[in-house]
Amino acid sequence: MTAEQFAARHIGPDPDDERRMLEVVGYGSIDELMDAAIPEVIRWHGTLDLPEPASEHDALAELRALAARNTVAVSMIGLGYHGTHTPAVIRRNVLENPAWYTAYTPYQPEISQGRLEALLNFQTMVTDLTGLATANASMLDEGTAAAEAMTLARRASKSKSPVYVVDADALPQTVAVLTGRAEPLGIEVRVVDLDTDELPTEFFGLHLQYPGASGAVRDHSGLVDAAHAAGALVTVAADLLALTLLRPPGEIGADIAAGTTQRFGVPMGFGGPHAGYLAVRAGLERMLPGRLVGVSKDADGNPAYRLALQTREQHIRREKATSNICTAQVLLAVMAGMYAVYHGPDGLRAIAARTHEAAARLAAGLRAGGVDVADVAFFDTVTATVPGRAADVVAAAAQRGVNLRLVDADRVGISCDETTTPAHLEKVWAAFGVAAHAGDVDAALPAALARTSDFLTHPVFRTHHSETAMLRYLRRLADFDYALDRGMIPLGSCTMKLNATTEMEPVSWAEFAHIHPFAPDAQTAGYREMITQLEGWLAEVTGYDAVSVQPNAGSQGELAGLLAIRAYHRSRGESHRDVCLIPSSAHGTNAASAVMAGMRVVVVGCDADGNVDLVDLDTKIDKHRDALAAIMVTYPSTHGVYETGIASLCAKVHDAGGQVYVDGANLNALVGFAKPGKFGADVSHLNLHKTFCIPHGGGGPGVGPVAVRAHLAPFLPGDPLTAAAGRPAISAARYGSAGILPIPWAYLRMMGASGLTRATGVAVLAANYVAARLRGHFPVLYAGNKGLVAHECILDLRPLTKATGVSVDDVAKRLIDYGFHAPTMSFPVAGTLMVEPTESEDLAELDRFCDAMIAIRAEIDKVGSGEWPAGDNPLANAPHTAAMVSGDEWPHPYPRSVGAYPAQERVGKYWPPVRRIDGAYGDRNLVCSCPAPEAFES
Amino acid sequence: MTAEQFAARHIGPDPDDERRMLEVVGYGSIDELMDAAIPEVIRWHGTLDLPEPASEHDALAELRALAARNTVAVSMIGLGYHGTHTPAVIRRNVLENPAWYTAYTPYQPEISQGRLEALLNFQTMVTDLTGLATANASMLDEGTAAAEAMTLARRASKSKSPVYVVDADALPQTVAVLTGRAEPLGIEVRVVDLDTDELPTEFFGLHLQYPGASGAVRDHSGLVDAAHAAGALVTVAADLLALTLLRPPGEIGADIAAGTTQRFGVPMGFGGPHAGYLAVRAGLERMLPGRLVGVSKDADGNPAYRLALQTREQHIRREKATSNICTAQVLLAVMAGMYAVYHGPDGLRAIAARTHEAAARLAAGLRAGGVDVADVAFFDTVTATVPGRAADVVAAAAQRGVNLRLVDADRVGISCDETTTPAHLEKVWAAFGVAAHAGDVDAALPAALARTSDFLTHPVFRTHHSETAMLRYLRRLADFDYALDRGMIPLGSCTMKLNATTEMEPVSWAEFAHIHPFAPDAQTAGYREMITQLEGWLAEVTGYDAVSVQPNAGSQGELAGLLAIRAYHRSRGESHRDVCLIPSSAHGTNAASAVMAGMRVVVVGCDADGNVDLVDLDTKIDKHRDALAAIMVTYPSTHGVYETGIASLCAKVHDAGGQVYVDGANLNALVGFAKPGKFGADVSHLNLHKTFCIPHGGGGPGVGPVAVRAHLAPFLPGDPLTAAAGRPAISAARYGSAGILPIPWAYLRMMGASGLTRATGVAVLAANYVAARLRGHFPVLYAGNKGLVAHECILDLRPLTKATGVSVDDVAKRLIDYGFHAPTMSFPVAGTLMVEPTESEDLAELDRFCDAMIAIRAEIDKVGSGEWPAGDNPLANAPHTAAMVSGDEWPHPYPRSVGAYPAQERVGKYWPPVRRIDGAYGDRNLVCSCPAPEAFES
Repeated sequence: MTAEQFAARHIGPDPDDERRMLEVVGYGSIDELMDAAIPEVIRWHGTLDLPEPASEHDALAELRALAARNTVAVSMIGLGYHGTHTPAVIRRNVLENPAWYTAYTPYQPEISQGRLEALLNFQTMVTDLTGLATANASMLDEGTAAAEAMTLARRASKSKSPVYVVDADALPQTVAVLTGRAEPLGIEVRVVDLDTDELPTEFFGLHLQYPGASGAVRDHSGLVDAAHAAGALVTVAADLLALTLLRPPGEIGADIAAGTTQRFGVPMGFGGPHAGYLAVRAGLERMLPGRLVGVSKDADGNPAYRLALQTREQHIRREKATSNICTAQVLLAVMAGMYAVYHGPDGLRAIAARTHEAAARLAAGLRAGGVDVADVAFFDTVTATVPGRAADVVAAAAQRGVNLRLVDADRVGISCDETTTPAHLEKVWAAFGVAAHAGDVDAALPAALARTSDFLTHPVFRTHHSETAMLRYLRRLADFDYALDRGMIPLGSCTMKLNATTEMEPVSWAEFAHIHPFAPDAQTAGYREMITQLEGWLAEVTGYDAVSVQPNAGSQGELAGLLAIRAYHRSRGESHRDVCLIPSSAHGTNAASAVMAGMRVVVVGCDADGNVDLVDLDTKIDKHRDALAAIMVTYPSTHGVYETGIASLCAKVHDAGGQVYVDGANLNALVGFAKPGKFGADVSHLNLHKTFCIPHGGGGPGVGPVAVRAHLAPFLPGDPLTAAAGRPAISAARYGSAGILPIPWAYLRMMGASGLTRATGVAVLAANYVAARLRGHFPVLYAGNKGLVAHECILDLRPLTKATGVSVDDVAKRLIDYGFHAPTMSFPVAGTLMVEPTESEDLAELDRFCDAMIAIRAEIDKVGSGEWPAGDNPLANAPHTAAMVSGDEWPHPYPRSVGAYPAQERVGKYWPPVRRIDGAYGDRNLVCSCPAPEAFES
Repeated sequence: MTAEQFAARHIGPDPDDERRMLEVVGYGSIDELMDAAIPEVIRWHGTLDLPEPASEHDALAELRALAARNTVAVSMIGLGYHGTHTPAVIRRNVLENPAWYTAYTPYQPEISQGRLEALLNFQTMVTDLTGLATANASMLDEGTAAAEAMTLARRASKSKSPVYVVDADALPQTVAVLTGRAEPLGIEVRVVDLDTDELPTEFFGLHLQYPGASGAVRDHSGLVDAAHAAGALVTVAADLLALTLLRPPGEIGADIAAGTTQRFGVPMGFGGPHAGYLAVRAGLERMLPGRLVGVSKDADGNPAYRLALQTREQHIRREKATSNICTAQVLLAVMAGMYAVYHGPDGLRAIAARTHEAAARLAAGLRAGGVDVADVAFFDTVTATVPGRAADVVAAAAQRGVNLRLVDADRVGISCDETTTPAHLEKVWAAFGVAAHAGDVDAALPAALARTSDFLTHPVFRTHHSETAMLRYLRRLADFDYALDRGMIPLGSCTMKLNATTEMEPVSWAEFAHIHPFAPDAQTAGYREMITQLEGWLAEVTGYDAVSVQPNAGSQGELAGLLAIRAYHRSRGESHRDVCLIPSSAHGTNAASAVMAGMRVVVVGCDADGNVDLVDLDTKIDKHRDALAAIMVTYPSTHGVYETGIASLCAKVHDAGGQVYVDGANLNALVGFAKPGKFGADVSHLNLHKTFCIPHGGGGPGVGPVAVRAHLAPFLPGDPLTAAAGRPAISAARYGSAGILPIPWAYLRMMGASGLTRATGVAVLAANYVAARLRGHFPVLYAGNKGLVAHECILDLRPLTKATGVSVDDVAKRLIDYGFHAPTMSFPVAGTLMVEPTESEDLAELDRFCDAMIAIRAEIDKVGSGEWPAGDNPLANAPHTAAMVSGDEWPHPYPRSVGAYPAQERVGKYWPPVRRIDGAYGDRNLVCSCPAPEAFES
């Protein structure tokens, strides 16, 4: 009666596979391999102190018990988080469908048309509702979206003022995030009561909440004009549901709109994940941070989607970037966009009207009962004044299963939403001690602000309103895409491993899904216990002393870690330490994060082996010794190598008074074998969506906890509702994307020390197996001890490209014909492919990939030898669509079968929906909302 | 704050669509249309007395409240129902995946290769484990599988004896079902204690339980030899998990094995649905009832699967059939087969060994505590004797959350399974008042019966053991198939409407999934309340007085209804009434059911309009007046017409002393507009998988409740554990497939009277719209009042076939190229297509279908005109696979694009994985288990 071994399900190769792989790599056991691969100086030889691995059934039972300690109350707290009905067809066929949630970020657009279309729907929804020209494909949450708006405004404004004016009626957590982001950048956030106080004479930006946190709906047009007159840009943080009834930000002159789409069918999840949004007026679109989906065309001239303006991101701008955002919230943006598709404009208007009617009825009842309700226009939220009684009212409501907002000792906020029922209103009235109110009520929306413009006019928002139609639309889009449910996605540095169903199921449970982030602690004991356990296990795995799960993406974890270092130096009176050393091989995000944390970036070179150049390091340390704040390194390096100099590097930086930041992106090569917190690092962020099985969701959600040694623990992210100086909030919610933390919890709980350690060993074995099989066909660029790589390997195509003209792009697209997602292209070295197979791929799949790469090498040789012309060969024409290979004409110098079926697999082949996409064309002709259906006519 | 209108999501056409459709049909409103279409004589003008429609959210909340009234206990009752861990990857990607559950029975094999392969895995699993030659693709449950084995034995045996000997240690519910089935067929079931009593000298069959209900594992080989010597056939009802350790039935000479695969990952569901199984030795395969998947080849000679020996089924044999089974349990068989694929032979052996070890430990502990445990070999179940204390022990266990089996006043049965934990054993020991037992225990399996033969040797059972591999295998198979999530399945008489997610979700809830059918009533209050409500609503909808949901398929409902009629006549001393009139247009199942109910079938002709020939009816009534038991008619008729003579027909039969059975297959044309129980019928069965949204699951589960007027209510199916004469059990479990009853409950609860009535109207409108659009291209064969059809229409292809040689088959396969599942072929009239669009298809999809049919008509004309040769044209070559149209050669006289893209849809096209399948080849060369991988080499 031993537990079912989950690890055997998670890890692809079985013992037979493992033996055969070890033979090829030339080691007798995984232990021997790991002894050889990992430098002894960092090696940790203990056994992780984690609970014994639980079976899938037992892990779920434990999570059920934790979930049962949460209380699902009716949430009327508001503040940007609302009850919402997720349409079941979207829950089951998006959130719970591996075709959507195991997909990668759509960097290979030809095999990502489904989610790109879904994101274009999302962007169109945001631009239509906000009345602005261009929206990106989601932000992490409303707070960080507002922060990105602030830095965008600063970059775009001609004003030299450091002042950013923030509406006193803004969401309190937004103010906390803005303040935290502003300080290291030298921005001064000034909170102003715009009802009573004047605007300052100089400021570069203005943040308005619409409707306000109090519920008040104000006409902001005067303020917008005043701000523009001062040369400032205006951000309106707007509720999209309200915008179905209210004049949108774009029509009152706003430059930017920011907010959340949570209430469009995405469960609250104790704070996240949800898709934030950011939209800008014409002229600012090329400054938008994050990812932007645009329309371009493929090799046949057919419309095709891809990420637009991709190359302007932080990995190009690096230390000049004003944003470090990478992973966004694609899965949730898809859900929110589909919610709009399913309801359509009329449905959304009806939901908004119903919501408003509930709030109006509530207010009428309170007033009839003698309660003082603020005499302002409102949409869904009212603020009631009950002098001295606010806490009692809130408690009385909680007793009835309804959470209200305790504004202060005298005031209570109450928000309605699409889930509000008459029974809920009755409970609220009862909590106030007033009678229920029936009969007609007047609307409380100002006629002058009534929306007159149309929205969601594109046919996609008017077609899929029956469940049958929606189901088919979702299936059709999913079928366009290649995700982990079809085959390997061997992306270097992205660790596309199994996202097990048992890990995913609890995300849908009401006790995790329907908890407001500001619910009373008494209702969230299970959540907090789970998070405490998870933070403890992550600390054990990484060797650190404290962990915060608040950062809701890796980029945010980086910022949180660097801010902790900054605060630490300041706490010691060393605020002059502001130099951050970053190796030239680092991910661009590192540099951007350092700048956002108020640091100066100094680049350290790499030696010929791709390792950090320790001589150059000495030079740079010497030069910046007094100002040295930190070094940021990735380990194993972004070259996929266990650098032996890491311990020495740490010591040198520490000796100079600096702190060591180890980027945890590659933790999958360390777990169970080495702990950054023990081999010299002071802080790391982890990517729970890489090493710890949160699915990539097509480009988010991610979770990027920050882990620190004890001396940095006091500087971990603070609670956004109570954040103090020196401990700023990184996300809008205390625990970030809490709603998906059951995933890594379950992974750790089911793998245990033995499973995690074996996973690392098999991941390293798999990378070395691929390297061994492919080395004779493509040079493997870097290696460490004994010629071994860590968990990924870089295949150098540059000599072949030089000789034949066949590019990395050609190989990546040709892999689609063979039934694969391409490895990482041209990172960290241009002209190469970085392959990370992970532990979840079995030998059959690894071999299928190696066979494909070897076959492609033979194809390259045919181009090189002139057998196939350079411009017209299966590589240059890849990927081949079904329409192409079954066309009535076939003008190519190779048979159709070579184009279509290089891997011989004639049944069950994945067909990309479009041919090679011309990205540059789309960037020149930027279109970022749904194109008219006529564009698709052949 | 009105409820979300679910009906608007369920019903495809919106008001705009509806207007346009009415215009084409020529009516001003649905009411006008229905007034014209439905004969006033049957029309019912009331409003259904159902609760107001609930929103999806509210319906789920009500179901949650009902579910909360069930108690999920640890089930150790056994008797063929066991706890099991459904692998999460199978739950999410099969049971909860519309690609699997919305598929139809694989009558169109070219677009069903995924589920056909999955069923072949199931069949291979059953044959391997039972050691027999051929297994079918599932039975309804163990009880009915045993009954089918009994009738098969009778047909195959040379013995003239009516005696069927049944092991006294057989499952009690099996004995009840056997007895109920035997009586009308003149079979005498004789229950014999085979440990103590002799076999009779003459008998035609022997039913053995292995292991016995008591848990005892006996060597049956001597009995098998004795039975064979008497000319009898032997059925062994065997536990497949035990067979991983025990010598299989085939190796002790059994002719037939029957049983259930429930414990292979299928939740108990308070009795079902699960997949029963039936396997036979070589020589009996052509007598197997139900559906059998076999291997054949396609037009390119590649292996391809399809239903084998399909044409011998009851719709051909009709009144000569010995079985009426149609719908089986495909979805559950897929799950069970995948459980075997996922665990593989070693995994299954390990689960069996763990289960056995738990039982052995349990027995050792009981014995050590002085409890008398039967001194026999056992696998998972032990019987303990506690004189006079059995009820107390069972109660003490129940108090600890564990259900045991109360055998009688002195004996308690305890069954272990893969979910049994040490904590469970401790609770059992405590209930008996004995101490917990640690340390090693001896196995209790007899060495002489140890299994020595290998099983599940096919690679499919050794390949997909990681979750990643399993996920991809499931996706790959799902992608082969066409289901409702891709497009319309316009199957006449099968009502392929939306299976809404909200209806489906509760099926997975533990409080519905993990309830043993024989759990104490106190633990099932929620289930029984839900069933009572559902039965009440169904009675209201149909106009009957009482409903039983026990029959777990339409065929079983027919049998139950006819048995009720039979019992009614007998109760009135009219046991001589045994003639059942059946119109010639009836579904073959009707006749088979009548024979199984001990009736003689007399066929009534149809007139030129397809209606029951009332003159011939008079003749037949006159001829059989004294013997007349019943008439079975379908209404609307299988011709899709509201026959105006129905009321007169009912009166005539009643006048002659007969009862009227209205087959409820076409109830979707009546709900809200007419009630069979009010217009003259005495009994109907309903198909909850047609009208009431249980998904077809690729060929099951179905549910076929029987509904009767008050005078027949005393004769509804009895409880299988307490069944009395005259009220036999129809299924092994009291409420049949209770686990899926939340689906129709939710449908009725969310639609309410208004939604149901509108659904019927739109379904009839849609059928008339299709008929109106296509009438000019294909004659519509039958019509009723004012030339209107009911909910389906028959397109007559015979003149075209005669003129051009293009067959119904060609059109059906060509529809695949256009992206459709074919309508029903050649039923009820050979050479025709019967189209039932249902209310869930929106106008765009209806038009897509009509456009395709019109385009196909033009293609037929090109064959007729000689533009395309008869043997080589897009119709004859359909369906076109991607491999075919992208082949290096193209020898056909039409362009590839015409073959591949007749509907112009070049992106997102569904490609069938194989070309036209040669069914006859497969029937001549019968292969019904997984072929060797080499068969697929190109």
